[in-house]
Amino acid sequence: MSITEVESSFEVASSLFLKAIVQQIRANDPYGTYRNWSDELLLKPYVVSKAQKREISVDGDVDPFTKGRVLAFYRAIAARVEEETGQLCQVVIDLSHEGFGWSLVFCGRLLVVCKTLRDAQRFGFDSLEKVALEGEKIVQSGVAAIQKFPDAAKG
Amino acid sequence: MSITEVESSFEVASSLFLKAIVQQIRANDPYGTYRNWSDELLLKPYVVSKAQKREISVDGDVDPFTKGRVLAFYRAIAARVEEETGQLCQVVIDLSHEGFGWSLVFCGRLLVVCKTLRDAQRFGFDSLEKVALEGEKIVQSGVAAIQKFPDAAKG
Repeated sequence: MSITEVESSFEVASSLFLKAIVQQIRANDPYGTYRNWSDELLLKPYVVSKAQKREISVDGDVDPFTKGRVLAFYRAIAARVEEETGQLCQVVIDLSHEGFGWSLVFCGRLLVVCKTLRDAQRFGFDSLEKVALEGEKIVQSGVAAIQKFPDAAKG
Repeated sequence: MSITEVESSFEVASSLFLKAIVQQIRANDPYGTYRNWSDELLLKPYVVSKAQKREISVDGDVDPFTKGRVLAFYRAIAARVEEETGQLCQVVIDLSHEGFGWSLVFCGRLLVVCKTLRDAQRFGFDSLEKVALEGEKIVQSGVAAIQKFPDAAKG
């Protein structure tokens, strides 16, 4: 699938969550490597088809690039939760070399997002639309958690 | 200071927290390396004097042994909080190569312990008594957090 096809299938600008990921990637680009890359190109590594996933070995280490991808995804979630609630969030990704671990987003004493990671080497989604949908779903459950436990979220 | 001196200065058996650390170390000893080591000897690496700390460089990586020491410390805290409250706790240590990071103990959606780590290469305490005191202080603040936010701790 060419980049143009990805572009035509889903508009990055239509998703606050995709825009948040792009922002995270560009914010962590001190040498301007990605300056001339389109948003679609930056997000392309998040789209991993089932066939592609099968080809990625889960025996080895999680490479730094994949780790960065997972981190930017959850930082985007934290940024979106901050936007919606005005509460500062922290992100911690704890990944073993075998691709297992935790992704945590917290705010005060409250865990806004608490997910176990498995086979992180294969982290990715079927389509850009799926990235946007899944991400926004996690954001909304995080916002709901803050509304449910406002005192814990404050400290 | 010899091991005998450490032994005479403070009794491991008198501290539930020290016993919990020892238990963590022995539980992670699949080859029985420490089988014949006394509790005092196992705990010795937790005692790092100010002079010793100054000699440890914080420029390099955190070595696996130190990482294990930090992890066993916070797992012992989790175990003690479980003992006191009956609630299952998880531990996540997120340490950068530079020795900065987070140590988190959580239970449901509640962060029972949430500490930033700095210069983790130098992780240690003045004396065994200090390990016991500091540890138990963190345990009690964790128990208090669960009592304050019981609903968040449940889910």
